[in-house]
Amino acid sequence: MSVPAQGFTATDHAMMARALRLASRGEYTARPNPMVGCVIAQGDEVVGTGWHERKGGPHAEVFALQAAGERARGATAYVTLEPCSHQGSTGPCADALIAAGVTRVVGAMSDPFPKVNGSGFDKLRAAGIQVDTGLMEPLARDLNRGFLSRIERGRPWLRVKLATSLDGRSALASGDSKWISSEAARRDVQKWRARAGAILTGAGTVLIDDPHLTVRLGDDTPFAPPLRVVLDPGLATVARGHVREGGAPTLYLHAPDARMPRGIEADHAAVNVAHGLMDLDAVLKLLGERGINEVQVEAGATLAGAFLTAGLVDELLLYVAPLMLGERARPLFDGLHIDEMTERLSMRIVETRRIGADVRVLLQPGAAP
Amino acid sequence: MSVPAQGFTATDHAMMARALRLASRGEYTARPNPMVGCVIAQGDEVVGTGWHERKGGPHAEVFALQAAGERARGATAYVTLEPCSHQGSTGPCADALIAAGVTRVVGAMSDPFPKVNGSGFDKLRAAGIQVDTGLMEPLARDLNRGFLSRIERGRPWLRVKLATSLDGRSALASGDSKWISSEAARRDVQKWRARAGAILTGAGTVLIDDPHLTVRLGDDTPFAPPLRVVLDPGLATVARGHVREGGAPTLYLHAPDARMPRGIEADHAAVNVAHGLMDLDAVLKLLGERGINEVQVEAGATLAGAFLTAGLVDELLLYVAPLMLGERARPLFDGLHIDEMTERLSMRIVETRRIGADVRVLLQPGAAP
Repeated sequence: MSVPAQGFTATDHAMMARALRLASRGEYTARPNPMVGCVIAQGDEVVGTGWHERKGGPHAEVFALQAAGERARGATAYVTLEPCSHQGSTGPCADALIAAGVTRVVGAMSDPFPKVNGSGFDKLRAAGIQVDTGLMEPLARDLNRGFLSRIERGRPWLRVKLATSLDGRSALASGDSKWISSEAARRDVQKWRARAGAILTGAGTVLIDDPHLTVRLGDDTPFAPPLRVVLDPGLATVARGHVREGGAPTLYLHAPDARMPRGIEADHAAVNVAHGLMDLDAVLKLLGERGINEVQVEAGATLAGAFLTAGLVDELLLYVAPLMLGERARPLFDGLHIDEMTERLSMRIVETRRIGADVRVLLQPGAAP
Repeated sequence: MSVPAQGFTATDHAMMARALRLASRGEYTARPNPMVGCVIAQGDEVVGTGWHERKGGPHAEVFALQAAGERARGATAYVTLEPCSHQGSTGPCADALIAAGVTRVVGAMSDPFPKVNGSGFDKLRAAGIQVDTGLMEPLARDLNRGFLSRIERGRPWLRVKLATSLDGRSALASGDSKWISSEAARRDVQKWRARAGAILTGAGTVLIDDPHLTVRLGDDTPFAPPLRVVLDPGLATVARGHVREGGAPTLYLHAPDARMPRGIEADHAAVNVAHGLMDLDAVLKLLGERGINEVQVEAGATLAGAFLTAGLVDELLLYVAPLMLGERARPLFDGLHIDEMTERLSMRIVETRRIGADVRVLLQPGAAP
C-alpha cells in the first residue's frame, strides 16, 4: 500500500466513494469478474466515469477514459481495483491510462488475480504516474468479497440464508415452512440471489419445498441467472422439481457411485462422501473452479448445520419473523451439539434492518468486539 | 374527544411533545400514579413547566402554574393527562387551572381513573375554558400503558424479558444461561426494571440462577425499588437467595396449602393452583390490587411459556445475542405445542435496536399489518 505523504484528501474520498457506487452497478452482472468502478477527475471536477458491466465487455477504466477524452490528460483516475496489466478479453487498462496522459492513479486495493497482483500499479509507476493505494480498501474488499474469496482462498464466499421464528425454528415438525417470513422478506431475498453466482440446496428441500431457486426481481433490472446447485448424493431428485425449470442452469452434485437415471439429461459432477455427508470443502472447491464467486445456501436445518459446523459459513443472512413456532418445531441448525458455554458458536452482527414485518440480521463469523 | 375545528396547530404539537417528555421524567418514580407532564404557554412562549415526580408530591399542573405565576392568565395549559377534579393527596388541579385564569386547556387523553374519568375536563368547560383533547393520545397512552392497564383492565401491564441466542435458546441443557447477552444488554435491562412496579420470577430461577432482581442503574438517577415477586407454589425457596437481600421488598406467591417454614418472615400471599400451575390471572389481579402498574417477568422458559400460552403477555423484550447454542439447548418458551402454521403465535415488532453486540427487539401481541 502506498498512501500519499499528506494522506488522502476529502476530494479523494468523495471520488472513491463515487467509484465504489459505480462499481456496485455490476453487482448482478459482472461475475465471474470483479465489480470495478472508475472516476476520472480534474481536481474537484469529474470528467469521466465508468463501471464494468459484464465479462467480455469493456473495463471500467475504458468507459471512463472514453468519456473524459482529452480531459484525461493531467487528470487523476480513481479505481476501486488495480487496473489490469495483461491482455485479456480487452487491452491492458494500465496502458490505456498511461496513453491517455493521466498523472495520478488512486486505487482502493490491489487485484490478487495472479495475472495482475501488483503489476498494474508497477506499470503505472514505471511510466512516471503517481500511484496512491489503499483508499477505502475495506469497502472495496467487502464489495468483491465473493471474487476475492475465489481468488485468494480458492473457494466461493458462502452465504447461508435462513428464515426463522423468534424462537429459532425454521419449520414445523411436519416440515412446513410456508411461510415463516413476510412477503417483503421473500422479495428482499431475490436481490441476494441475484448477486450470487450459485444458489445451493439439498435433495431434502427439493423433495419437500420444491423451490424454483430462480431470481424474480419484479422489474427489468438485468442480472445473470445464478447456477442452481443441488446436493443430491443418490441423484434421487433429478427426475423432478421446479429446480430444473426456467431459464437458469442446474448442476447436481452426487456421490461417486451414483448413476444418472436412464433418459435424464442433467449437468452433474461427483463429489466424495464421508460419514454419509458430501465433502463440503470439495463442493466449494468445485464451484470455485467453475468461476462461482458467491454461493447462497437456501436449504434446511441439516445442510445449514453441516456448513456451520464445518466452519464454512462466511455470512449468515437471517430473516427473523415475529412468530413463535413452539418447542416441537425444527431447530434452525441440525447437528449443533453444544454442552458447555465455551463451545457456543459466536458471530458478529454486521447489520440489522427491518424488512416488512421481519428483521433482517446479517452476521459474519467471529465474536463481537 | 374534542378536537378544535381547525385542528391542532404546530405549536400545539410542539408543546404537547414537550409535556410528554416532561412526563417521562417520572418513569422510575411516579408509580403507582401515572406519569404526567404540563406546559403552560402564551402563544409560542413557554411560561411554566411541571411534571409529577412521586405519589404524595405535587401534580404536574401545580409545578407549572407556580412557575408561570401571573403569566398563566390567558395562557394555554398542555396536559398529557386529564387534570384531576377530586381532592386527593393534593387539591384538584382543575380548580387550580381555573383559579389561575388559564383560558384554554389542551389534553392528550382522559384519565380513566374512576374519580376523574371526564369530570376534570367537564369542570374546566363549565368554567368557560376551551378544552381540546386527544392530541398525541397514542403516545400518551403508550407512556402510561402500565397505569392504564391497571385502571382499565384491573391488572398490570405484563412485560416478559428474555435473552436468547440466534437459534432461539434461553439456556443450555444444563440450565446454564450465564451469559447469553452482552454486558451492554444486561445494563440496558436495568432501565426496564426501574420502570416496572414489580419484577416477577419463578422458584426455579431462584434455585438455579439466584438473581438479585434489584435495579442497578450505575448512576444516581432516583428510582422507586420495584417489588420482587417469586411464584413459589410450595414456598420451597423462602429460606434462601439474593432475592431477599438488598433494599427492595419481596413477595412470595404460593399455593393455598403451602405453609411458611417456621422462623422465616416474608411477605406472602396465597393464589389458587390448577393443573399444577399457579393461576396467572389471579397473580396479576393480586398485583394490580397492590398498585402495580407494570410487571417485568424475568424467569425461565417454563414461566415465560405459561404467560405466553395464557395470552397474558403485553410486551416481549427480547435480547437476541449473535450466538448459536445448538439443538440440545433449552427452548425459549416451554409448553408451546404447535402443529399447524395456523396455530403459530404472531406478534408485531414495535422497535429494534442494537445494544452492544446484541439486538433488542420489542414486540407486542397481534400479527404485523
